[in-house]
Amino acid sequence: MYLLNGESKHSIEFSDRGFQYGDGLFETIEIKNGSPLFLKQHLQRLLNGCQRLLIPLPDAELLRKEAYQLSKDSDHAILKLIITRGSGGRGYRQPNKIHPTRLLSLHPFPNYSENYNQQGISVRFCNHLLGLNPFLAGIKHMNRLEQILARAEWNSSEIQEGLMMDINRHVIEGTMSNLFVVKENILYTPLIEKCGVEGILRGILIGIANQNKIKVIKNNLSKEDVLTADELFITNSIIGIWPIKQLERQQFKIGLLTTKLQRLFSEIKQQEIKNAY
Amino acid sequence: MYLLNGESKHSIEFSDRGFQYGDGLFETIEIKNGSPLFLKQHLQRLLNGCQRLLIPLPDAELLRKEAYQLSKDSDHAILKLIITRGSGGRGYRQPNKIHPTRLLSLHPFPNYSENYNQQGISVRFCNHLLGLNPFLAGIKHMNRLEQILARAEWNSSEIQEGLMMDINRHVIEGTMSNLFVVKENILYTPLIEKCGVEGILRGILIGIANQNKIKVIKNNLSKEDVLTADELFITNSIIGIWPIKQLERQQFKIGLLTTKLQRLFSEIKQQEIKNAY
Repeated sequence: MYLLNGESKHSIEFSDRGFQYGDGLFETIEIKNGSPLFLKQHLQRLLNGCQRLLIPLPDAELLRKEAYQLSKDSDHAILKLIITRGSGGRGYRQPNKIHPTRLLSLHPFPNYSENYNQQGISVRFCNHLLGLNPFLAGIKHMNRLEQILARAEWNSSEIQEGLMMDINRHVIEGTMSNLFVVKENILYTPLIEKCGVEGILRGILIGIANQNKIKVIKNNLSKEDVLTADELFITNSIIGIWPIKQLERQQFKIGLLTTKLQRLFSEIKQQEIKNAY
Repeated sequence: MYLLNGESKHSIEFSDRGFQYGDGLFETIEIKNGSPLFLKQHLQRLLNGCQRLLIPLPDAELLRKEAYQLSKDSDHAILKLIITRGSGGRGYRQPNKIHPTRLLSLHPFPNYSENYNQQGISVRFCNHLLGLNPFLAGIKHMNRLEQILARAEWNSSEIQEGLMMDINRHVIEGTMSNLFVVKENILYTPLIEKCGVEGILRGILIGIANQNKIKVIKNNLSKEDVLTADELFITNSIIGIWPIKQLERQQFKIGLLTTKLQRLFSEIKQQEIKNAY
């Protein structure tokens, strides 16, 4: 089910700059009991991204209305929101008057195993390195070749995620998730200043940690830092929190801080499900 | 005029990964007297790019046939060729069986002033810096937010191009062109190993220089190297060779080597127009 600028459609003009150049951004949102979860945070990130990409801000109230309209009959699904710079301009040059494209779409929720949440996942390091670009870092934009090439490195269903380093060999994130590292009861997560996506769940978890007096440090992390962690987990809006039980040949236990954060997040999510309705 | 997988269409499925993630590549080709120029070189780069992006190679003979089919009634126009990874897969993960999308389209030739070729253009340095990504460097892929943001930095029609540096402050290219620098009768052009696009015309010019015993050095170039050049020019398949007469506040003369290369390229192009038909 697709809603393109308010109309039910299945395709987009070739001339749309989202297609020509990946000139846009997106949000992937969990729908539960007919409501898009953490929509406020997703819309805020989308608007921030538009601002940074010089795309005129879409009407947030309209996006909100359409998001609910598309979600209302779904028990559990995914809502994807796309904003592009629309059509026009010559080559890379944007048109003088920008008419952004607004696309909302509904997708089935992936059938991830419940085990991933409880017993953890197996993860590898990707060979593909993230380029550094402070101008684009943090934004969930539509230029995603790096993630696609990294995700293409493995096919085994035994491996659920790949961790990506940047060209300075700092570990930044998973191909589709943010990374958290626990060491001596301190929570570390990579800086998203030169590359990487600022995940919504990453932001929520940092907030939870702050409120619960769990020390959080955003920092540069080496492969060594990650491999010598006490606990490791990844996050995104769809999977929630997945503990890492294995990274390359290294085993990890699912520790107390990870399960505590899972519990605290689960409470916030239940609250969100209640309020979002 | 558009040809999507051999059919006349105007739009593309939302699910196409070209739209979702910029997961594809393109070529922009000059059509002259009904023929796409330097098509062989463009197809070769396209195939090389597919290989590096792990997209199954399209049928080059079919692309060639469709390129001529679309070009045959145009006196002077632009042909754009797009190959994407098609639809399917989950998120960034590519589908097990990839069915690439093939799109050819015809566009009017831009009305660039003839003066640009003969009297040169005015150029600025962009603030937006290119990220470093050796995995993607050289490929004319569809992840073009960097170029779009750089091109959005100026609006004045007095400025025809912006030069981009990478995050190491090496000058790499223009937003839509490659850069050449002449110093003491040696031709320098930036390395395209960590970022940038390997232009078709760049390749042709390097070949011309080699054949005519003009020394070419591919090198890292600083802003200082560029500003202290004897001659400067930019190239791409559509504009040909545009000498730079002004860069920021610095004036440049259109020197002997630039005009010699323009003349040599013009001969090659005339030959190509004759043979391509």
